[in-house]
Amino acid sequence: MDADALIEWALEDAVSDSETPPGPPLLAGAIRHAVFPGGARIRPQLCLAVAAACQEECGGDLLVSAGVGASLELLHCASLVHDDLPCFDGADMRRGKPSVHRTFGEPIALLAGDALIVMAFSALAKACGAAPAVLARVIPIVATAVGAPGGIVAGQAWESEAQVDTRAYHRAKTGALFIGAAEAGAASVGAEPAPWRALGASLGDAYQVADDLRDLLMDGAALGKPAGQDERFDRPSAVRDLGVRGAMAELSALIEAAADSVPDCAGAPALRALVHDQAARLMPASLARSVA
Amino acid sequence: MDADALIEWALEDAVSDSETPPGPPLLAGAIRHAVFPGGARIRPQLCLAVAAACQEECGGDLLVSAGVGASLELLHCASLVHDDLPCFDGADMRRGKPSVHRTFGEPIALLAGDALIVMAFSALAKACGAAPAVLARVIPIVATAVGAPGGIVAGQAWESEAQVDTRAYHRAKTGALFIGAAEAGAASVGAEPAPWRALGASLGDAYQVADDLRDLLMDGAALGKPAGQDERFDRPSAVRDLGVRGAMAELSALIEAAADSVPDCAGAPALRALVHDQAARLMPASLARSVA
Repeated sequence: MDADALIEWALEDAVSDSETPPGPPLLAGAIRHAVFPGGARIRPQLCLAVAAACQEECGGDLLVSAGVGASLELLHCASLVHDDLPCFDGADMRRGKPSVHRTFGEPIALLAGDALIVMAFSALAKACGAAPAVLARVIPIVATAVGAPGGIVAGQAWESEAQVDTRAYHRAKTGALFIGAAEAGAASVGAEPAPWRALGASLGDAYQVADDLRDLLMDGAALGKPAGQDERFDRPSAVRDLGVRGAMAELSALIEAAADSVPDCAGAPALRALVHDQAARLMPASLARSVA
Repeated sequence: MDADALIEWALEDAVSDSETPPGPPLLAGAIRHAVFPGGARIRPQLCLAVAAACQEECGGDLLVSAGVGASLELLHCASLVHDDLPCFDGADMRRGKPSVHRTFGEPIALLAGDALIVMAFSALAKACGAAPAVLARVIPIVATAVGAPGGIVAGQAWESEAQVDTRAYHRAKTGALFIGAAEAGAASVGAEPAPWRALGASLGDAYQVADDLRDLLMDGAALGKPAGQDERFDRPSAVRDLGVRGAMAELSALIEAAADSVPDCAGAPALRALVHDQAARLMPASLARSVA
């Protein structure tokens, strides 16, 4: 199975566990709506890619890594469902279809996000069932990437502060889950996570810059979600700080930094190639041409 | 340390981990507001009591059990914060003070609930750091008690359904976390969880009946939260089904069933005494007299 198929299999495995009767049907529908069909699945891709790079030296089982990657994607989906709610972005569209609260109502959307967070940890335990030492190693990495004081939940919370620590805000809102994905990928096959932190950090920063560019330059139909949100909510943005050309240059530099940060190992050349591939997915060629 | 002190220590340990700078201060304040000062801490009490009863035969470390109990309490606090939000109960008061969203605003309340769910799993991993096999055993128990299809999140979601499976609703909304507390208590010291399921189920049912009685018979000042919510939201209620005297009789029967369900073990007599003690906490004597 290739990485895409492994990730979808692990996500389906987790989501279908939550659909056993007699559960409430709307909640089950909302959970499935939030997870399928997915976006780029970029965080589990990163997790699996790091695991594969480490595996040549460490061994380990990529089915475990796929479960770990799926748990990161479930947490990402949870954050999208909650961020789209009226008390945050009030977004009507996500991934080209009505957002969860527009489809199922606000109470079910809130609960679906909660259930997805719980499901992520349940999926971790299931994936690591035969490797409890891996589980004990991965949970703190994942929890750090998502919770307080520095994970994606904290990143969103910075938007309620009168005085924002911009570096902490950016690192938490986007970078933390990329760092978690890289570190958890290594830990999922028993490798040391720390050497992979820089890769996650650079890719997270690159993703944030690409997201800022897309928010300004693409329309809602192409994005599959509302555009122009940074301006509307007066959020810090690389494009607002650096201009479009400056942000494009920053994006390229961050991708190079990410590729350079890959530790020397048997899987390094393949992973560096993948980083450049992912960069192309971050910034579609048509968009790059439009500002060239 | 007695059980109360152990539980508060474990909660403080978990919450203070989330307060390291540079985190967003409002989120940190909301998390602390949601957890301290607490209510009866009845779920971690149950978890620790079962662990202590098993410990005479199994060994194990009550510090691990306290961490597991704290994780259940953090999940309970998360559910209270989210249930109080305007899209559910819209409750202004909780535990005798303004609810989290009334104090910190809706966005921060939503995020504090999310962060508390993540923190619960983080606390589990920390508590079981030296016992990863216990961690692998406890996470599915806790996730089942909280998530979809049958945990407390699912219980709340039943309130959005046009056709409610009343048994599934009650079991999920309250019973699931009591069952989880009893099972996780056993698993936290390496004992078999299944024999403790009936105790959790009976105590959960008893707690629900007591809660229905308090909602009808006590005023908001004594409850520390709005009263009369079952009538207002047209929710199923033991008092509405059975009348006050009928519900009181049901409560007594459930407490007896709980005490009877305690498996025979060295710690059984102490645990049965504790069940009767807890029953007195569920239904204050003054209230029992007022309907005698």
